Amino acid sequence: MTRFPRRIALLGSTGSIGRQTLDVVRCYPEHFSVVALAARSNISLLAQQVQEFAPTLTACFAETPELERAAREALPGVALGEEGLLEVATNGDVDIVVAATSGLMGLAPTLAAIIAGKTIALANKETLVMAGHLVMQAAQSAGVSILPVDSEHSAIWQCLRGEDTAEVNHLILTASGGPFRRATLDQLRSVTVEQALAHPTWLMGPKITIDSATLMNKGLEVIEAHWLFDIPYDQINVIVHPESIIHSMVEFVDGSLKMQASLPSMHLPIQDALSYPLRLNTSGTGLVRELRWAEVAQLNFETLDTTRFPCFRLALEAAKRGGTYPCVLVGADEEAVALFLEGKIGFLQIAELIEAVLERHQPITRPDIPAILEACAWARRTARELYETVYQRNFL
Amino acid sequence: MTRFPRRIALLGSTGSIGRQTLDVVRCYPEHFSVVALAARSNISLLAQQVQEFAPTLTACFAETPELERAAREALPGVALGEEGLLEVATNGDVDIVVAATSGLMGLAPTLAAIIAGKTIALANKETLVMAGHLVMQAAQSAGVSILPVDSEHSAIWQCLRGEDTAEVNHLILTASGGPFRRATLDQLRSVTVEQALAHPTWLMGPKITIDSATLMNKGLEVIEAHWLFDIPYDQINVIVHPESIIHSMVEFVDGSLKMQASLPSMHLPIQDALSYPLRLNTSGTGLVRELRWAEVAQLNFETLDTTRFPCFRLALEAAKRGGTYPCVLVGADEEAVALFLEGKIGFLQIAELIEAVLERHQPITRPDIPAILEACAWARRTARELYETVYQRNFL
Repeated sequence: MTRFPRRIALLGSTGSIGRQTLDVVRCYPEHFSVVALAARSNISLLAQQVQEFAPTLTACFAETPELERAAREALPGVALGEEGLLEVATNGDVDIVVAATSGLMGLAPTLAAIIAGKTIALANKETLVMAGHLVMQAAQSAGVSILPVDSEHSAIWQCLRGEDTAEVNHLILTASGGPFRRATLDQLRSVTVEQALAHPTWLMGPKITIDSATLMNKGLEVIEAHWLFDIPYDQINVIVHPESIIHSMVEFVDGSLKMQASLPSMHLPIQDALSYPLRLNTSGTGLVRELRWAEVAQLNFETLDTTRFPCFRLALEAAKRGGTYPCVLVGADEEAVALFLEGKIGFLQIAELIEAVLERHQPITRPDIPAILEACAWARRTARELYETVYQRNFL
Repeated sequence: MTRFPRRIALLGSTGSIGRQTLDVVRCYPEHFSVVALAARSNISLLAQQVQEFAPTLTACFAETPELERAAREALPGVALGEEGLLEVATNGDVDIVVAATSGLMGLAPTLAAIIAGKTIALANKETLVMAGHLVMQAAQSAGVSILPVDSEHSAIWQCLRGEDTAEVNHLILTASGGPFRRATLDQLRSVTVEQALAHPTWLMGPKITIDSATLMNKGLEVIEAHWLFDIPYDQINVIVHPESIIHSMVEFVDGSLKMQASLPSMHLPIQDALSYPLRLNTSGTGLVRELRWAEVAQLNFETLDTTRFPCFRLALEAAKRGGTYPCVLVGADEEAVALFLEGKIGFLQIAELIEAVLERHQPITRPDIPAILEACAWARRTARELYETVYQRNFL
């Protein structure tokens, strides 16, 4: 796919990645055009985006009748429900689908887009974590590329250009370490929601910010890297790099390492996925600040202490067990993080609760979409039940 | 060129790069075979190498009748003189010529090898610095690759794989900063030969070690990078990185940087040039120590202070003026470093002397080989004369 302008469908246009995708599109009108937009509940922002980008198709996954009515009023001709997402993902005029919805919502439309032969710019973590086996197989069958929209995976992808993945010794994902990089276990026990929401280098939504603080997010990224680059788990390492300048590395069998760096920016991986194999000049766009080594001066590296960050260990264990375990991990984590954000469980109990759910799971190997969704739903129910029957009593 | 085993001709087999090239060959007998060896004066080591690697052709550029006689005795059938070097460089059984001689000696055989269609693994700096215009044009005409054998250029070469050089914003060469990275101008004035020969990260011959201490070496590397990668001088920067872990970087127009790293090792760039496009597994060879981030822990970056390292500035000025100026730079530097090593001039006078020679030069544009050699010889004579007529009196 080298034709420009590229015609883009954007799933999740009102979220953080969605808005930054539109920032990129805005800077390069000769390279990108927006053909279809889909969002969930931020109807006023979606209406603004429709006015600015004039897509031929707009969808709203409105979850309540009130939202549906509001969507219909604000956006005449809007496509609704899951059907609307699928229309956006498979529209015949679309070259590339940016999958930037959060949670499970992106799974079915992403698979549909792959089957329809669309290039996928993938920002949604759950898609590969829960259904990596289905997604990568579908992509291979359809001959489509899954391009990462995530600083770590974009870094690895860039480092692998012109290289043979058979010559990879290790993928090394960098982790900022989050706000509690230096916290003791005792300090972690009494972490407040406010402290956990203050990420040192990245400004993101609350769920992913907590996942970054527990390092669950890094565990999910390891699983994504496994699927994207077809590298076994024992060849994927994580190193703590607090400055978030080096976004990840690839170590080859000859002992040579390649790394990709920039000042922290989501615009860069978004743009690189949209314009691949071209790199577009960002000077004057305001999208990517130039990295000046005189200002950066120092990069630090530390080993990851999994005893203080059990969520990372749980993610890796679930990944290696495979089957529905990663789906249960995702479901239990969603519920545990929600409970933490509601002030109902402590920071370290996020991992405890996830582990308790994983222990109770009866896995299925190579699950299909319904089995994936059911495993995830089971995990959410079980997490909530465990909280109510066990944790609520212990904790309160 | 993908056939293995690759048949290697090694120009400069007894020098530092030559010996390390044979270390690599020794580790991969199924990938490499030595067809021809050439050295200058270390006849006993050359004889040992001939015994071990059994090349079909051996040459010795013996500079005195005594050395010639000794070479004939130790190595029956040895080819002598410049003719011998040319035979090694153009031998019909050779796939790849490793140009690892020091100084000017490599220029003619390297050009001959290019014209004969050999892939060149280039370790000799002077070849590109003095004759970059001839070498790159010849390589383009013959359709041969010039592969860098130098950690900085190998790093850039690796970072450019799968990329378009038209999308390069800057090449960023890293410099260890040498032993006097933190020295004041006053301290530099009284540097001893012993201090200048103690390089913090790389163990090399005396000439290149002094060039590293003055940062002339980094200036020469900028000129090499210009020719190897066809990037204008104002898009090549140098940053001081004392740990010598990141060997160089490429900054692209989108703001993304790629870097290559390893523990300091010359075996790695040698092997990467020999085996390209394959990367050979070094585990168990002892050639490349694995980089452990937990041990490295910190990487530092500083701007280069050209006021304390005037040789770097002189190299860039000579490069931008072009023509025979870089040849004069090389010749004057050889003589000035020799005078410093002989204890005849001070450390800062290396640059003074080179600058005085450059000022006296009447340049020729696009010089041919004789003009290049003559400009270099003129510079050496002029440097020696200036020392004798001006500096010797002031200095003693």
